[in-house]
Amino acid sequence: MNLNSSRSGVPQAHTPPQNIVNSAPSGVPLGNAPPAAYFQEDWRPDPASPLPLHVQISSCFSARISSGAWPAGMKLAPQRELCRLLGVNRSTLMTALGTLAGQGLIEGRRGGGTRVTAADNHSNNSTAHGSWSDYLEEGTHYPNLPAVQAINRLEFEPGLIRLGTGEPAPELLPGEAMTRVLAELASRPLPPLAYEEPLGNAGLRSAVSRQLLKQGIQAEPGSILITSGALQGLQLIALGLLPRSSTILLERPSYLYSIHAFQSAGIKFSGLQVDESGMVVSRLAAETLRTRAAMLYTIPSFHNPTGIVMDETRRQELMAVSGGIGLPILEDGAYQELWLDAPPPLPLKALDREGRVLHLGTLSKAASPGLRIGWIVGPEPVIRRLADIKMQTDYGASSLSQMAAARWLDGGYHEEHLALLRSRLRERRALMLQLLDAHFSGLATWSAPAGGFYIWLSLHRPLPLRRLFESARRAGLLLNTGDLYDRGDSRHLRLSYAYASPDELQRGLPALAAIIREPVNV
Amino acid sequence: MNLNSSRSGVPQAHTPPQNIVNSAPSGVPLGNAPPAAYFQEDWRPDPASPLPLHVQISSCFSARISSGAWPAGMKLAPQRELCRLLGVNRSTLMTALGTLAGQGLIEGRRGGGTRVTAADNHSNNSTAHGSWSDYLEEGTHYPNLPAVQAINRLEFEPGLIRLGTGEPAPELLPGEAMTRVLAELASRPLPPLAYEEPLGNAGLRSAVSRQLLKQGIQAEPGSILITSGALQGLQLIALGLLPRSSTILLERPSYLYSIHAFQSAGIKFSGLQVDESGMVVSRLAAETLRTRAAMLYTIPSFHNPTGIVMDETRRQELMAVSGGIGLPILEDGAYQELWLDAPPPLPLKALDREGRVLHLGTLSKAASPGLRIGWIVGPEPVIRRLADIKMQTDYGASSLSQMAAARWLDGGYHEEHLALLRSRLRERRALMLQLLDAHFSGLATWSAPAGGFYIWLSLHRPLPLRRLFESARRAGLLLNTGDLYDRGDSRHLRLSYAYASPDELQRGLPALAAIIREPVNV
Repeated sequence: MNLNSSRSGVPQAHTPPQNIVNSAPSGVPLGNAPPAAYFQEDWRPDPASPLPLHVQISSCFSARISSGAWPAGMKLAPQRELCRLLGVNRSTLMTALGTLAGQGLIEGRRGGGTRVTAADNHSNNSTAHGSWSDYLEEGTHYPNLPAVQAINRLEFEPGLIRLGTGEPAPELLPGEAMTRVLAELASRPLPPLAYEEPLGNAGLRSAVSRQLLKQGIQAEPGSILITSGALQGLQLIALGLLPRSSTILLERPSYLYSIHAFQSAGIKFSGLQVDESGMVVSRLAAETLRTRAAMLYTIPSFHNPTGIVMDETRRQELMAVSGGIGLPILEDGAYQELWLDAPPPLPLKALDREGRVLHLGTLSKAASPGLRIGWIVGPEPVIRRLADIKMQTDYGASSLSQMAAARWLDGGYHEEHLALLRSRLRERRALMLQLLDAHFSGLATWSAPAGGFYIWLSLHRPLPLRRLFESARRAGLLLNTGDLYDRGDSRHLRLSYAYASPDELQRGLPALAAIIREPVNV
Repeated sequence: MNLNSSRSGVPQAHTPPQNIVNSAPSGVPLGNAPPAAYFQEDWRPDPASPLPLHVQISSCFSARISSGAWPAGMKLAPQRELCRLLGVNRSTLMTALGTLAGQGLIEGRRGGGTRVTAADNHSNNSTAHGSWSDYLEEGTHYPNLPAVQAINRLEFEPGLIRLGTGEPAPELLPGEAMTRVLAELASRPLPPLAYEEPLGNAGLRSAVSRQLLKQGIQAEPGSILITSGALQGLQLIALGLLPRSSTILLERPSYLYSIHAFQSAGIKFSGLQVDESGMVVSRLAAETLRTRAAMLYTIPSFHNPTGIVMDETRRQELMAVSGGIGLPILEDGAYQELWLDAPPPLPLKALDREGRVLHLGTLSKAASPGLRIGWIVGPEPVIRRLADIKMQTDYGASSLSQMAAARWLDGGYHEEHLALLRSRLRERRALMLQLLDAHFSGLATWSAPAGGFYIWLSLHRPLPLRRLFESARRAGLLLNTGDLYDRGDSRHLRLSYAYASPDELQRGLPALAAIIREPVNV
C-alpha cells in the first residue's frame, strides 16, 4: 500500500491529453523518460541458433506486427534501448530494422522515432480510426504520475539501489513459513474453490477480528470486508461512498497524493499541516467548513512518508473535534503493527463509538504483499455497500489467498514473523541512522522513526527534485522524492530502510550525499 | 463471470436516490425484498448458556450499537426475519427489543420498522450529518440491480433449488486436483510472495499463452494481462479505455446487461439482434454510425444467456464489417473451452491481424471461480495501459493464485479436469433436456446448447417476470429471469444445468412448469 510497491510502471504510449493532465496534479515531468511502447522484455535472439541474430529479430518483430500485438502506429523504443533489451549491437539491430522497413512494416518519422506502419501487409484497413490504441488516452481513470511510472519501471532494472521502496526486501518476506502454511492447507482435501461470501471468507474474517482485538479494535466478522490489499479498500471507498467533487482532508505530505484512486473518481484533496505529534487539528473544524470536506484520511501510526506517530493526546483531540463537526474518518493502519520500540497509541478505530471511523488494514507490510489481502472495518451498512461494489469489481479476493491468510493468522505464523521482522528492521534502521549521521549532517535533518519503514529527509536547501532523481538514477540510485507526496515539495526525500540491503545502504547513502553536496551534479 | 456467480447480494440500506435510479436501467423492482440492514448471520444466542436467550440477544445488540458497528439510524431486519436468523420465538425477541428500547438504544417508527436510536448513550453527538452511513447513497458506482441483490442474497438460503446459477456446482469443482496443485507448490520452498510484474506472473502468462494457442490464438506473454477474473477485465476496460458517455454495441440479450461495470463508468448500451448463427451483422455498420459506438462486446461461443454459438461464416462477416468501419471488438471467451459436442469455430481473436480484438478469458468456468484468475489479450500498448489501471486498483492479482493457476495449466490438470467436467455437463444437459421435453412442451420452446451452461427458455406467453420470480421463490426455486439480460424482456428464463444437482433438477423443473402453467400462481 505505498508508492513503490506499485508496479504499475507501464509507460504510456503518449503524453496524457490536456484534459487529463489539467485535472491531475502535475509538476513532475520526467527529464529523460523513454517514450514507452517498448516490447516486453521476454524475448531475446538466441546466439546458438543457426539463424543470424538480425533475422531472428526481424522475424520476431514481423510476427508481432502481423498478429496485431504491435498495432499500426505503435512507437518502438529508441534504438539504444532496443540494443540493450535485445542484447545485440547497433549494426545487428539496424540490419533487422532495415529488413522490416523494406517490407513496409515499420517506418521512421522525422524526430518521432520508429513506428509500426499504418497499414501492414495483412490489412487493407484504414487506421484513421477503429483501433484500441486510439483509446489509450481515453477512460476516466488517470494514468499513474510519470514519475511513478518511471520508478515502477526502474524497479525492474537490475543493479539499481532502491533507497525509498515501501515494501519489505524479498529476504525479509517469510518464504519458509509461507511454504509451511501452504503445506498445512494441502495436508487435507481443499474445499472447492468457489466464490466466497461478499464480505470475504468467514474464517479469515474471524481471524482478522481476533487480530484487531490485539490492537484494541473490537470488530465482529460482520463489520469486516476482505479486500485485495488496502489499496483496493481506498478504491472501493472512492467509487462507492464519495460523491464526485467531494473534498478529502489529509496530512500533507501523504502517501495518498502519490496514487490516483480518489482523483480518478473526481475527488479533491486539501492538505493539513503535520507536526511531531501528528496532524495539526487546531484548524480542522475551520478547514472542514471551508472545504465542505466529506471525510478525513489519516495514517496516524508511522505515517507514510514522514514516519510520524500521532500521539495519544492528538488522537483524542482529533476524535473530539471531528466528532463535534460530524466528520467521518478513514484511518489507514497499514503500519500499525510495525512498531520497533514500543506499540503506538490505540488506533482511532478503537476510540470510535459512533461508527465514524473506517479502518484499513493489510497483510502486505508485515506478512507478504503477494497475498493481496487487506481489510476494511466499519459500520455494517457501510461495509455491505462496499462489499456490493467489490463484488461488482472482481467478485472478491482469491479464495486460496484468503485461506492461506486465515491459516497465517490463526497458526501463529504472523506473530512469529512480526518478531523477526521487527528485529531485522531495527538493525536496518540503526544502520541507516548511522550512515545519515556520517554523511548527511551538513545537508539535511531527520528524525529517528519509532516504527514503519521510512525516514523523511529534510534537505537544508531546496533542490530541483526531478533533476536530482535523474542524477541519482545515473549513479545507480532509485529515489522516492518528496514531490510524489506533496506536489509543491522541493526539499524532501522518502528514505526506506525496509528494502535496500545493508551493503546497498552502505554504498548508496554516501553516493547520494555526494550528489546532493555537489550542485553541479543536480 | 456471470450474474449468479456474483455474490454481491448485499442489500442496500435504502433505495438508491433518484439520480442513480434514473440513469441505471430499471424495470426490475422486487416485490417482497426485505428492507436490508440486517445484522450478519454470524451469531445466535446459545441455549446452553445460563443467561436467558433474550438477555444474550439484548447484550449482543447493545454491544454492536455501542461499538458503532450498528450506527445511528440503521434499520433492523423485520421481526419475523430476526426470529428466523436468531432461531428464537417472537416473545423472546420482543423481550430483548423491549430491553433495548428501554435503554434508549432502539426505537420503533410508524411504518418504518425498528431503528438504532439517533443518539445513543455513548455519544452526545448530533447525527444530523457526519456519519459514513450518510454516504450509502453516494459514490459513482451503482449498486447492483435489486433483482440481482435478491438473487445473490437468496443463494445463501439453504434449500433453494438454483435453476439458473452460472457457476459449476461445488461437486463439479476440482477439489482433489487443486489439493495436489497446492501440495506440488508446497513441496519446494516458495519464492517470496512479493508484488508481481504489472502484467502478472511471468510463468502464468507463458502458460496462458500456450493454452490460448490450443484455441488458435497466438499471443506472446507480453500481450497478456492477468486479471482477478474476467469481470475485472471488463471493469478495467470500462475505467481505462472508454470515454464517459461512449456507446457499446452488444448482443441483446446479454450477460453484460446484468452487471454495472460499464454503466457505472457512464457508458451506454445499444443492443443488436441475435439469430441462431449469432449476432446479426447486417445492420452493424449502420448501427455503429448511428450510435457512434466505441466498441462491440460479444460472447461468440456459448453465449450467456442464450447458449448460441456464432458460426464461422458469421464470425468472418463480423470481422469484415467491423474491420471496414474500424470498430474495435471485445470478445468474451469465458465459455470457449466448455464445448460439449465439438469445439466451436476459432475465436475472433484468432482471426484478428490488426490488434482490433481484445479477448477475455477466465479460469472461473472451467477450473475454479475461487482462484479469481482471468486474462485480457490484446495489443501491447493497450495491455500496458490496462495494467497501469490494474496496478492502481489493487496492485495485481494474488501471487499464490497466479502460481497455482500456472501449475494448474502446466501440470496438465486443466485438460484432465475439462474432460471430466464436459462429461458431467453432458449428463446434466441431457437430463435437463429430457425434463424440459416432459414438462415444458406446451409452455415454451428452447434449443439444445452445444456447450456452456445455459438453456434460454422462450415462454409461449409473456409473464410478469418479477412476480414469477417471487412465486418460484416461495416454491423453493431460484430463477434467473430474462429481464436481467434484456430490460424489456417478459418471456424468457435462463436455465443452467451447471449448478443444480440431478435430483434437484428432477424436482425443480416440474415444479417450475406447474407455476408457469397456472396463471393464478404468478
